[in-house]
Amino acid sequence: MGVAIIYMKGYQTFSSIESSTTTKVKGAAYTNFSTKEFNPHLRNIEDYRRIWDVADYVVPPSESGSFFVTTNIVITSNQTQSTCPEDPEIPGAVCDPNNNTCQAGTPTLLGNGMMTGACVTSDINSKTNVCEIYAWCPVEQDLNPLIKNKALLSASKNFTVLIKNFVEFPKFNIRRRNILDTSNKTYLRGCHYHPRTNPACPIFVLGEIVAEAGEDYDAMATKGGVIAIIIEWDCNFDYDENYCIPKYSFRRLDDPKAKLAKGWNFRFANYFSDNTRSLYKVYGIKYVVIVHGKGGKFNFVPLLINIGSGLGLLAVATVIGDIIVLYVLKKRKYYRSKKFQLAFVEDEEGSCKDKTDLAVRKRKNENCNSDCPETFKLNESQQTK
Amino acid sequence: MGVAIIYMKGYQTFSSIESSTTTKVKGAAYTNFSTKEFNPHLRNIEDYRRIWDVADYVVPPSESGSFFVTTNIVITSNQTQSTCPEDPEIPGAVCDPNNNTCQAGTPTLLGNGMMTGACVTSDINSKTNVCEIYAWCPVEQDLNPLIKNKALLSASKNFTVLIKNFVEFPKFNIRRRNILDTSNKTYLRGCHYHPRTNPACPIFVLGEIVAEAGEDYDAMATKGGVIAIIIEWDCNFDYDENYCIPKYSFRRLDDPKAKLAKGWNFRFANYFSDNTRSLYKVYGIKYVVIVHGKGGKFNFVPLLINIGSGLGLLAVATVIGDIIVLYVLKKRKYYRSKKFQLAFVEDEEGSCKDKTDLAVRKRKNENCNSDCPETFKLNESQQTK
Amino acid sequence: MGVAIIYMKGYQTFSSIESSTTTKVKGAAYTNFSTKEFNPHLRNIEDYRRIWDVADYVVPPSESGSFFVTTNIVITSNQTQSTCPEDPEIPGAVCDPNNNTCQAGTPTLLGNGMMTGACVTSDINSKTNVCEIYAWCPVEQDLNPLIKNKALLSASKNFTVLIKNFVEFPKFNIRRRNILDTSNKTYLRGCHYHPRTNPACPIFVLGEIVAEAGEDYDAMATKGGVIAIIIEWDCNFDYDENYCIPKYSFRRLDDPKAKLAKGWNFRFANYFSDNTRSLYKVYGIKYVVIVHGKGGKFNFVPLLINIGSGLGLLAVATVIGDIIVLYVLKKRKYYRSKKFQLAFVEDEEGSCKDKTDLAVRKRKNENCNSDCPETFKLNESQQTK
Repeated sequence: MGVAIIYMKGYQTFSSIESSTTTKVKGAAYTNFSTKEFNPHLRNIEDYRRIWDVADYVVPPSESGSFFVTTNIVITSNQTQSTCPEDPEIPGAVCDPNNNTCQAGTPTLLGNGMMTGACVTSDINSKTNVCEIYAWCPVEQDLNPLIKNKALLSASKNFTVLIKNFVEFPKFNIRRRNILDTSNKTYLRGCHYHPRTNPACPIFVLGEIVAEAGEDYDAMATKGGVIAIIIEWDCNFDYDENYCIPKYSFRRLDDPKAKLAKGWNFRFANYFSDNTRSLYKVYGIKYVVIVHGKGGKFNFVPLLINIGSGLGLLAVATVIGDIIVLYVLKKRKYYRSKKFQLAFVEDEEGSCKDKTDLAVRKRKNENCNSDCPETFKLNESQQTK
Repeated sequence: MGVAIIYMKGYQTFSSIESSTTTKVKGAAYTNFSTKEFNPHLRNIEDYRRIWDVADYVVPPSESGSFFVTTNIVITSNQTQSTCPEDPEIPGAVCDPNNNTCQAGTPTLLGNGMMTGACVTSDINSKTNVCEIYAWCPVEQDLNPLIKNKALLSASKNFTVLIKNFVEFPKFNIRRRNILDTSNKTYLRGCHYHPRTNPACPIFVLGEIVAEAGEDYDAMATKGGVIAIIIEWDCNFDYDENYCIPKYSFRRLDDPKAKLAKGWNFRFANYFSDNTRSLYKVYGIKYVVIVHGKGGKFNFVPLLINIGSGLGLLAVATVIGDIIVLYVLKKRKYYRSKKFQLAFVEDEEGSCKDKTDLAVRKRKNENCNSDCPETFKLNESQQTK
Repeated sequence: MGVAIIYMKGYQTFSSIESSTTTKVKGAAYTNFSTKEFNPHLRNIEDYRRIWDVADYVVPPSESGSFFVTTNIVITSNQTQSTCPEDPEIPGAVCDPNNNTCQAGTPTLLGNGMMTGACVTSDINSKTNVCEIYAWCPVEQDLNPLIKNKALLSASKNFTVLIKNFVEFPKFNIRRRNILDTSNKTYLRGCHYHPRTNPACPIFVLGEIVAEAGEDYDAMATKGGVIAIIIEWDCNFDYDENYCIPKYSFRRLDDPKAKLAKGWNFRFANYFSDNTRSLYKVYGIKYVVIVHGKGGKFNFVPLLINIGSGLGLLAVATVIGDIIVLYVLKKRKYYRSKKFQLAFVEDEEGSCKDKTDLAVRKRKNENCNSDCPETFKLNESQQTK
């Protein structure tokens, strides 16, 4: 009970929070190579000589309370709706020209398109035959591109994100913000969050977020993953509300040790006409901003309730007490004899009957007093009233 | 109380969960017709001879904890910013050339653009006149396209989705995943979830999800809707944590019986230049992954608390007991007379004063016994037993 | 306790809700000017003569439980991957041709691209020199565009949004919808929500939402912001479930008084080829639909529990009672003497020993006072103290 009241602040009412979070990523990365260089097996030669800015690598451009930063990309540019050989890696894609198993009009299992029925030579490996399909052609050749064992956009490690978090404690009608009013514009431009040296700065370096979460950025960037940015508002409004400032913590939210289906990637396309597009398979890190919070203020009701339920426990004491006295102690026999003593109750007719009701017994004593002169008279006097 | 403790696991502390979910849809569908065929009333002849793959039908490409699969589409291709007749179905669009009601510069109510002021012949129905508008032209003709009473992408019924769910029980620092480490890559490629035969497989066939939710896929695909995929982690860590596996359930989250504004659709456009785009009105099923979970482990505190509050109830017993004895029983009059009897308290000065305090009365009796022979005898008789 | 039971409906079990929300915005806006007109300092002359419809200003086209409406836009059209002067406003962009500080191959801090190493004349201000960068060129010139101190799409104030909210109370298996079955199609087309005159209409005018939240639309539209649309289902199913209708309320969720980093904006691009795009910096209002709800129904268990914990409190009464009697009242000395009086217990062997056990003392009095003169004397002696 003491614990419940003092340690767990049992004397406060708590307010939950309404929160809104917006994020803004900054930074640009440059890649300069042709897929030919780092992977001769690629069918489609893609030119990666280009700059990647926010509009390129944040997909979708805005999400509520989270943001995704692309770290690794497989581009399949200039696809058109036409026919081409299916990817040999797709189950059921490989076929035998002499005994054609490609069924026209049915889609390839887990594949990219609809089989035309023809069995043609693969455009990757001239020795294998695959079903021809009607699809966005050429089909993507799914290889995880790496430059020197690093993800293409490993430079994203230096990107920064400004997190604007606004919380309201409706019960107390208090509004707080993670950007302190004390900070000024130049500070906001320059500062970077650091758990010890700069815990109040709302600008985070992506690499440091991942490091704080105990992960290796380059490893994570290759396959992608999910990181939680947890903002904790634990405020005690018995003090000045300016002491109510958020704590940040970071945790990886997907399984780093996953043996199967590791990481996080998805595909999207930019359409240049109804019949031409560039397909992007993007690996990346999704940052989810989770806002926890509660604010406490002194209040009588919870205090009483805690006392109440606490006292419930006291009831146990008496019970246990009796048990010890009556069944454990050496003298238990005697005490028992005293506690349960036989008694007579004299009912209205004045005759005496044996009673087993305990409560009655107690009274019995009282009423046996009847003939101790004082009490007796007194009873009369009472009746005569 | 017993219930609270045993049945409701009152002896455990519970940990909430941090969860992350990523999804990946696979499959391709093929449509092959011109809008002319299945709906002669359409103004814009659209060619639907094309393949639809993930990048086409999952819009937006990634969402946190949910995904949308297009099932029915109205394409309005090659729109340009120019002037054209408004859709006659728009309220206030129809006009009378002799008494022109089209106000230049004001937008049509719920319409597609800005009225130029001209009243022109509709491009759908030559008999009606409509206001000319400056807009993305030609304007969309909103008809729900069906092939043989089925949604265009009814084939999406066979698409599969891999759901990766990772949960953490922070209090116990336990991490679990819905992809069991026991399963291997080939298993993951081949398996399909089934409530009885294959409850551990994280790959779901969309058609079966909808069926499990008790809905008809084709009906739902036509108008769109929302399906909840509920992942339930109810774990008891008093046992081995490998017994902690998720349960899946499925439920439709929008109103199947809605008379009005049924289903779920939205519009988006692919831009081919600043002045040309293709507009897509997509109907589809949004799958929302909801993760519930709690983990329990034995702990003393909650046990005590439950006992405490439980004992509170016992207090009722005595109260009720008295009530019965004093107001219900035949002998109540008598008992009452005994329970409340007038008494004297002899104060320091030794004089007698009338007291109403009950506690005092009790003591009164106790000390007045001194000269009460009966009680004594009675006690003797008892001891001699 | 009474409060807990009657006022706080302590006699009901409550069911949480499963909810799904879909939204659909309607309306079109027209802008007709060249950036030259309203801001001569702009480098890139953009033609804003165009119509903005849903597919243009709702980005991304669909979000779960929220939607974003663009209110202000900075267009940078026809960017290509090439080299151009960096924006002078970027820290570290300005350079001195005589003492070139531009490091080839390193990105500009918070900038748009990768420095080529050259120090060239700015295309905005011919007097300043800036580092040349490889980037999406020309780079955006970030100025908040206003027409007569109003946001470009201030007309969005008249747009409407249809909010479809469906809730389920799993415990009671009751499903409710914010579109009442009583309303018909024409009503749905015509009606607009109003807190007093039309609280049941699910169609909201954006301008009125913001007004209800106590904000000025034009001010908010310029810089952007976040508005919460709160739908409250507080249902008592002891009555007919048709009385279970939602209440709407509106609140701004970001800080209107923020001195720094005010509002909400983000960038996205439309790609017209792998090497050409139009960049959009959009300010706007994000509307987040928050659904709270609980449903109550009579049930015995919670009633008992409340009574139980309530009675716990009663225990306090007796304790306090004694304290008053023994330590506060004028007569306390006397009462104490009565409550704690020394006594003898005659054990089985019949000898008398001094006992400290209180319970025993009571019994002692009942039977043995009579012939123990000591106790009596002792009482006297005590009183004389």
